[in-house]
Amino acid sequence: MSDDGCVFCDVVRGTAEASTVHEDDDVVAFMDLHPVTPGHLLVVPRTHAAGLEDLDPELGARVWTVGHRLAKALRRSELECDGINLFLADGEAAFQEVFHVHLHVFPRFAGDGFRISAHWRQAPRRELDATAAAVRQALAALPA
Amino acid sequence: MSDDGCVFCDVVRGTAEASTVHEDDDVVAFMDLHPVTPGHLLVVPRTHAAGLEDLDPELGARVWTVGHRLAKALRRSELECDGINLFLADGEAAFQEVFHVHLHVFPRFAGDGFRISAHWRQAPRRELDATAAAVRQALAALPA
Ligand SMILES: [Zn+2]
Ligand SMILES: [Zn+2]
Repeated sequence: MSDDGCVFCDVVRGTAEASTVHEDDDVVAFMDLHPVTPGHLLVVPRTHAAGLEDLDPELGARVWTVGHRLAKALRRSELECDGINLFLADGEAAFQEVFHVHLHVFPRFAGDGFRISAHWRQAPRRELDATAAAVRQALAALPA
Repeated sequence: MSDDGCVFCDVVRGTAEASTVHEDDDVVAFMDLHPVTPGHLLVVPRTHAAGLEDLDPELGARVWTVGHRLAKALRRSELECDGINLFLADGEAAFQEVFHVHLHVFPRFAGDGFRISAHWRQAPRRELDATAAAVRQALAALPA
């Protein structure tokens, strides 16, 4: 399945320009056009999937495995890299912008300007246990 | 291999309290003590690895696969969840705090307070091509 007008399908097909670092039968990896830091990569499955819901689990594992290997390459490259983030946004509420599933892999270093903020707080155990029960219930109802 | 004083090894061994949602031969998943949003989960390999450098690639794929499945469970749970982020921090420069590799999986919804900021800019193609060449060179030098 592909998707008309999907820019990452165009990259996979070779009809959109991309600075590619890895291609195999399942996955393509290329530079993000709007890098957080120099070396910011995207790993995408060749087969179109909008997000985690319609991504084949084995193909997802291939995306991850290539991301893991790219992280090691970034650490050994000439690029500035003292750490690595892997990040995936699934759904508009999670900041997904291109609806072809993609894993971000980017180098980090002191002063790189990347920041996360959130309403962190220590949750009481009874709240964590209740939340865990809700997740376990949903897991048990998932098809295997 | 385990690591003395590693809190996630203690969770895996059952000697530290945790609100667990999934356990198998390779991986354990449990609620983050400081959730970004209710339902924030961590997936860890049973075998201690500080980060991506010493994480076995097949075990890493297992961590991912469980995270993928947990994302689907969160979407179907009673918890507020309009999107999902998967996030991994490798190294202090990347905001890693516990040095036993862990994948964050957390639900997202409008107004949840989670924010990312960075010095995004559109990179010129010649810069992306040069960065890609540096990554390809490092990839080619990695053991298979
Ligand atoms: Zn696509
Ligand atoms: Zn450990």
